[in-house]
Amino acid sequence: MPRPIITLLTDFGLRDHYVAAMKGVILGICPEACLVDISHEIEAFNIQQAAWTLAQACECFPPGTVHLVVVDPGVGSGRRPLAAQAGSHFFVGPDNGVLAGILDSHSNPSVYQITAPKYFRHPVSTTFHGRDIFAPIAAHLATGLDIAQVGDPVAEYVRLATTAGTVVSVDRFGNIVTNLHGESFRWIAEQPFEMHLGSHVITAFAENYSDARENEYFVTIGSAGFLEVSLNRRSAAESLDVKPGMTVLVRHPDAGTA
Amino acid sequence: MPRPIITLLTDFGLRDHYVAAMKGVILGICPEACLVDISHEIEAFNIQQAAWTLAQACECFPPGTVHLVVVDPGVGSGRRPLAAQAGSHFFVGPDNGVLAGILDSHSNPSVYQITAPKYFRHPVSTTFHGRDIFAPIAAHLATGLDIAQVGDPVAEYVRLATTAGTVVSVDRFGNIVTNLHGESFRWIAEQPFEMHLGSHVITAFAENYSDARENEYFVTIGSAGFLEVSLNRRSAAESLDVKPGMTVLVRHPDAGTA
Amino acid sequence: MPRPIITLLTDFGLRDHYVAAMKGVILGICPEACLVDISHEIEAFNIQQAAWTLAQACECFPPGTVHLVVVDPGVGSGRRPLAAQAGSHFFVGPDNGVLAGILDSHSNPSVYQITAPKYFRHPVSTTFHGRDIFAPIAAHLATGLDIAQVGDPVAEYVRLATTAGTVVSVDRFGNIVTNLHGESFRWIAEQPFEMHLGSHVITAFAENYSDARENEYFVTIGSAGFLEVSLNRRSAAESLDVKPGMTVLVRHPDAGTA
Repeated sequence: MPRPIITLLTDFGLRDHYVAAMKGVILGICPEACLVDISHEIEAFNIQQAAWTLAQACECFPPGTVHLVVVDPGVGSGRRPLAAQAGSHFFVGPDNGVLAGILDSHSNPSVYQITAPKYFRHPVSTTFHGRDIFAPIAAHLATGLDIAQVGDPVAEYVRLATTAGTVVSVDRFGNIVTNLHGESFRWIAEQPFEMHLGSHVITAFAENYSDARENEYFVTIGSAGFLEVSLNRRSAAESLDVKPGMTVLVRHPDAGTA
Repeated sequence: MPRPIITLLTDFGLRDHYVAAMKGVILGICPEACLVDISHEIEAFNIQQAAWTLAQACECFPPGTVHLVVVDPGVGSGRRPLAAQAGSHFFVGPDNGVLAGILDSHSNPSVYQITAPKYFRHPVSTTFHGRDIFAPIAAHLATGLDIAQVGDPVAEYVRLATTAGTVVSVDRFGNIVTNLHGESFRWIAEQPFEMHLGSHVITAFAENYSDARENEYFVTIGSAGFLEVSLNRRSAAESLDVKPGMTVLVRHPDAGTA
Repeated sequence: MPRPIITLLTDFGLRDHYVAAMKGVILGICPEACLVDISHEIEAFNIQQAAWTLAQACECFPPGTVHLVVVDPGVGSGRRPLAAQAGSHFFVGPDNGVLAGILDSHSNPSVYQITAPKYFRHPVSTTFHGRDIFAPIAAHLATGLDIAQVGDPVAEYVRLATTAGTVVSVDRFGNIVTNLHGESFRWIAEQPFEMHLGSHVITAFAENYSDARENEYFVTIGSAGFLEVSLNRRSAAESLDVKPGMTVLVRHPDAGTA
């Protein structure tokens, strides 16, 4: 078996002992782990920034990597701790939406609520589940523990009600290209959504330009795999007055309140 | 033998090459070392902050871990370099008080003045003992070198004259709870001390409430293991007008000048 | 074979996912790599600062270490990607001068332009060669790939037109000691150069004081191995009014435009 890799992504910063405490706990359980920091400079409690950073980094890691994400404004409240397998990677973190994007970008992720205290660090504090629950679970997964042992499968998990992205370019046809990965938004083909772009709200999706209705703005997944906004045979950018750099929000009306 | 772990705690910051230089030296001596940063963002020369951060982090690491601490305002002066074993961990750093708290929290630590130049990196600079003395000694300990080989045992080491903490809560009886670990202050039961709290100075210690004199403020070690200030049958917090967040200082009149 | 070491030196900062993306790519190719950050806080595009930091750090690493340097303002333009062996170390980075100092400090470095796409990560982006070209090449070198496989040998590489240093001391004879390693400036003995010190420009080099002409300021390599400015039998510092802390620039009139 190759050396297991565990990545860490938090909003803890680098001044204090918090990250090292998690690493110490991990190495006590899985001494051969290779620890890689993704970032600890996520803005405090910024779940969206963490989700975006996770998605960008994790695609570069080899199969079997365990990603430990602790951006956890709800620690001590009732939010559930999750462990998941999606594709060839594992993910451990709070059920507050931070994992939802990456899980949604895979078909059939296996998601579990962590409930097995025998894998925790005791006593479990009310304020530092990163050290006492998430880090030890990540370490046990890295040692090869069957993920089904950490708790009970769950069918649903909190999704971010709103995901923020940016307009990165406008192509020569006036299509508005964003930096939002289509993979993470496959649900918009089947469920209601709202894309906010300046003062405009777009609610239509089309697989192809030819599926779109006339004079209706619609969202599609472009050839590079990102969400785009188009208008059939006309420039969406021009008629919406959109320029690169503008913020775009995608709302999931049915999502959790995170 | 499991892979040896070496933690690093400095005030070097992350911009310059200093931390990497120490890591390169370590890996030249102990190629299999697992290097874990505790923090390099300790405020320049802030021995108290480093001591506190070390205490918080190191309890999470497995037996055998070597902790390398380089917060060293006295480099180039006569301060002694130390290596110590306390409990199942090793510690390497300057004799300026930064290690005293963690050593005092264990019974019978073995403390040595580092004097064996054959383990140093040569030529030894006058300004960067982290690279030339402390890092190589930490690396040799990680390879399994008997600590008695690094130099001569010492009976005494510099203690911080003043340790700063914070009032974290006031309980329903008016006891003032601090974040100062009782383990690191066992000496106050037997030696003179001063605890400064606002404009008040407390100099009495009592094992139990029943040992305390009437109308005298006293320090005790609470059930959670932290220093508390109490007043028999009355609210210490109320009569001292103390609120959570206030700073508390413990002075050791006999300690070194650090 | 000992565990291969790969150091990383970039201007990417620690907030974003860029460094982790490179590490993920490396670990996919060379799972046993030991990754050591030199710094990611190099000022954006500051090639001189990166070159200096690399020189300081890399001498502490054991033979066989691979140094990955991505300070790359020219990414997407025509600048060449380089891989080199110098002494017992390997270097991977853009041909913009960032590697020149360390290569010039060794005799007969082997320098290659990276051209073999089979070692790249595909698709190769136009903006992130750190992840798609440099990191995978560094990882392959760490696994033991013969460096001659990465591309074609090159005879010349871009040198920094200007290297900045600092006056660190003035000795009792008035010699001005800088922090510029003589090893990196052996070319000034044979090629034209300009050293700028305040408003003065010095263009003479002498191996020994006795080789210098009377009343002429000259550069020499002092006993500690650093560039010094001297004036025969008089105090250069006094007559040039130079104090420690002043900036010194060395220009290579024939160098590239970097």
